[in-house]
Amino acid sequence: MKQIDVNADMGESFGRWTLGADEKLIEYVSSVNIACGFHAGDWEVMSHTVALAVKHRVAIGAHPSYPDLHGFGRRHMEMKATEITQLVLYQVGALWAIARAQGANIAHIKPHGALYNIAMRDEECAEAIARGIKAFSKGVLVFCLPHSKLEIASEALGLKTCAEAFVDRRYEPNGSLVDRNIPGSILDVETAVRQGLALANGKVVARDGSTLELAIETLCLHGDGHHASATAEALRKSLEAEGYVLASPKVTSDA
Amino acid sequence: MKQIDVNADMGESFGRWTLGADEKLIEYVSSVNIACGFHAGDWEVMSHTVALAVKHRVAIGAHPSYPDLHGFGRRHMEMKATEITQLVLYQVGALWAIARAQGANIAHIKPHGALYNIAMRDEECAEAIARGIKAFSKGVLVFCLPHSKLEIASEALGLKTCAEAFVDRRYEPNGSLVDRNIPGSILDVETAVRQGLALANGKVVARDGSTLELAIETLCLHGDGHHASATAEALRKSLEAEGYVLASPKVTSDA
Amino acid sequence: MKQIDVNADMGESFGRWTLGADEKLIEYVSSVNIACGFHAGDWEVMSHTVALAVKHRVAIGAHPSYPDLHGFGRRHMEMKATEITQLVLYQVGALWAIARAQGANIAHIKPHGALYNIAMRDEECAEAIARGIKAFSKGVLVFCLPHSKLEIASEALGLKTCAEAFVDRRYEPNGSLVDRNIPGSILDVETAVRQGLALANGKVVARDGSTLELAIETLCLHGDGHHASATAEALRKSLEAEGYVLASPKVTSDA
Amino acid sequence: MKQIDVNADMGESFGRWTLGADEKLIEYVSSVNIACGFHAGDWEVMSHTVALAVKHRVAIGAHPSYPDLHGFGRRHMEMKATEITQLVLYQVGALWAIARAQGANIAHIKPHGALYNIAMRDEECAEAIARGIKAFSKGVLVFCLPHSKLEIASEALGLKTCAEAFVDRRYEPNGSLVDRNIPGSILDVETAVRQGLALANGKVVARDGSTLELAIETLCLHGDGHHASATAEALRKSLEAEGYVLASPKVTSDA
Repeated sequence: MKQIDVNADMGESFGRWTLGADEKLIEYVSSVNIACGFHAGDWEVMSHTVALAVKHRVAIGAHPSYPDLHGFGRRHMEMKATEITQLVLYQVGALWAIARAQGANIAHIKPHGALYNIAMRDEECAEAIARGIKAFSKGVLVFCLPHSKLEIASEALGLKTCAEAFVDRRYEPNGSLVDRNIPGSILDVETAVRQGLALANGKVVARDGSTLELAIETLCLHGDGHHASATAEALRKSLEAEGYVLASPKVTSDA
Repeated sequence: MKQIDVNADMGESFGRWTLGADEKLIEYVSSVNIACGFHAGDWEVMSHTVALAVKHRVAIGAHPSYPDLHGFGRRHMEMKATEITQLVLYQVGALWAIARAQGANIAHIKPHGALYNIAMRDEECAEAIARGIKAFSKGVLVFCLPHSKLEIASEALGLKTCAEAFVDRRYEPNGSLVDRNIPGSILDVETAVRQGLALANGKVVARDGSTLELAIETLCLHGDGHHASATAEALRKSLEAEGYVLASPKVTSDA
Repeated sequence: MKQIDVNADMGESFGRWTLGADEKLIEYVSSVNIACGFHAGDWEVMSHTVALAVKHRVAIGAHPSYPDLHGFGRRHMEMKATEITQLVLYQVGALWAIARAQGANIAHIKPHGALYNIAMRDEECAEAIARGIKAFSKGVLVFCLPHSKLEIASEALGLKTCAEAFVDRRYEPNGSLVDRNIPGSILDVETAVRQGLALANGKVVARDGSTLELAIETLCLHGDGHHASATAEALRKSLEAEGYVLASPKVTSDA
Repeated sequence: MKQIDVNADMGESFGRWTLGADEKLIEYVSSVNIACGFHAGDWEVMSHTVALAVKHRVAIGAHPSYPDLHGFGRRHMEMKATEITQLVLYQVGALWAIARAQGANIAHIKPHGALYNIAMRDEECAEAIARGIKAFSKGVLVFCLPHSKLEIASEALGLKTCAEAFVDRRYEPNGSLVDRNIPGSILDVETAVRQGLALANGKVVARDGSTLELAIETLCLHGDGHHASATAEALRKSLEAEGYVLASPKVTSDA
């Protein structure tokens, strides 16, 4: 039986503001990355999102960010490595306590937005995050791009990683993502689903038509786009039609 | 051997701003209440304060607050009970992860400022906090006024409480504190130390000269006043001269 | 020719979060109350909303709030009167500069949420707000409930007020609004439009069936409800069918 | 009579936190740059600082920043040019209204921290700031480094600029400041005063011993260092001993 994980960001509402169609989207994924209050989410949104994840039996991940509610965590912020470690611990701990109150635990950690992007290419940032994750739990999984600095730093500390690929983003021939600001960088539903299937199979067609080999364990869907639920539903159906079972990656030990 | 706990608020700096003489004050206490980022403190301040507590072998407490950095958590904010429970979990979890990274644990929880005041007299708020604390850990101690709603709610849920008294605040004959805005409500160093000794002995002279019996287990010092360190030092010396040993309350089980 | 003003709250998005159908709603009103960054709105949202108001030639009002983004300004926060005055000045000045950059000016000021509610019934708060408004401009209009503390305080300082009524909220026989938490306090579209027409005519049927006389100059629509645009469109059509022209209240002097 | 302006940052307290010895420092300067709530300062602090400036008859400047209270505005934040313009307007307008309530006006604008640094070297940021300043007032002065991008952009829009130099920072031979992280970049009191005198005279000795010519109109003191008041006092006395009169730059037209 072929297994694949599909993850999506959730819990990105805040106070009076609602974002994302979490209740619909969650039916089509096996892992969720829950915002921890720094780019989105608050204690109540986090609690509701944990409850939703528990109900749908999907794996719960923490989705820590730079402290930038106004910029939704998408702006890089200069920060010492020691500060990044504590920033990650703060957010992961907050979600852990809220999850624990519902009998749930944190299965994986995936940095959000600009923190994710920096962690993929900057060694110091990657190590700072990995140190925070390890201090929290040696058993939690780290979601990251294959061959990224975060993958390297996490594995060097003995952490398990989970290589992820993006269903709806165009790839460069070198395996990086085409910049969001370049037209065509975001795929339409049909192309995204096709790319998702190819990725589950370890391949992706890059921007220049070449085919890359990418060994990945989880497919990332974006939760806040216009077609988020449609893409998610179509992807799940296509994967199942190809014989895949959606399942979150196995966590070997507890936090 | 007579034991008594002395606790003080710490870690109330934030970003560029410094508050309190934590490094001096910590020499004279056995428990510290660490701000969790909602009224003061940030991930780095929290980490430094945990390190300080570990170094001085004092018990670490979480000091959760309403979300009001500008008002330093001293303004009441209307909030549903279910939200208060999550608010407490968020903050306690954040500190827990930061403490855990240094091999430390949370021994007690004490609400801060307006949240403390409301929790002493409002049953619904007290129960909401107690539920959050219990969901985090059945073994953690709850610091609160004797006979307060928070004491009652915590004990009803099977939590251990620790009755506290204020060294530098004048008492009303009914055991409540004289309002901060009334002249004479804050005691000078000498009077505070004398009151601290009396309280350790289970007694306090109220505003009208009458003597109250108050069975308490921890004496609270305020960390941010002008005379904070002086009062703390004098209190510790006086207590030791009377044969007391400063010691944090015993926690029977772990988080 | 009969004139009536219809006002609605706008610019309540923030960063990544969108709220309200401003672009639709603005076609049916003559005045807008723009959030100033404390309960909603940011510098960019404010700028866009000013541009929208300028394009549709509707009067621009400042909508200052308690500093509570998470609670959307709906929670009361204890604050000294002197602080409230500065709080109002800060927000009004911020909007003024953004409006001025587009050649626009502020025609009226209306407190938001909890600050509005307190200002209607609390003399000290009302006076603090009126002082801030007068310091900003003697010519700006103050939107408030008829006979409220804010009306009294504003007029005592020589400010012009503009009595407002709520189209979609049920009234108590004494002229106050039925509490939001009581079923039936929010009217459906049809009833709201009927009440709007009656109010334009100086009358409203209260909860107990009695008819109140209310001399009002502006009708308030809520911008963020499900039926906001539908109510607004139906109200404008009904008012025009009855011979009313929508027009913002005349401001006699400039800021 | 030789005139020179001395400016310092002020109003950098926030809520419960106090920063800087404004009451002492203000005796030795002729212009103050007041924080506008984004890196420090709040409506009350701003109001108190305006009152202090009015009492001491020093010129009031707005000191706008990136929105980063935690990082004290010292972290660069990616932002579109159009957003920067509104960000500046928001903060300047807020201070303007608070100043106006005390009969005062804004004489100059000086970006803070990272926003200052970026504006000196990045054309797009400089133009965005200059556009915001011009939309606020054509008569206000722009404080900036001589020959910086902000000076060029401001003058291109017809704004008056005021070239500033730093009393307590070591200069590179090319006229830029030695990086804060390099030892010796911050001067001691005696050296700072000597450099201040030389700068008033249009000269500065750079790191390599070479002498630069710098035509400057205002000397900047840092308000939050340990020796801030001592440096300020010594500088004023030395300048006066050399026949200088401290005076804020002349503003030709009003906001």
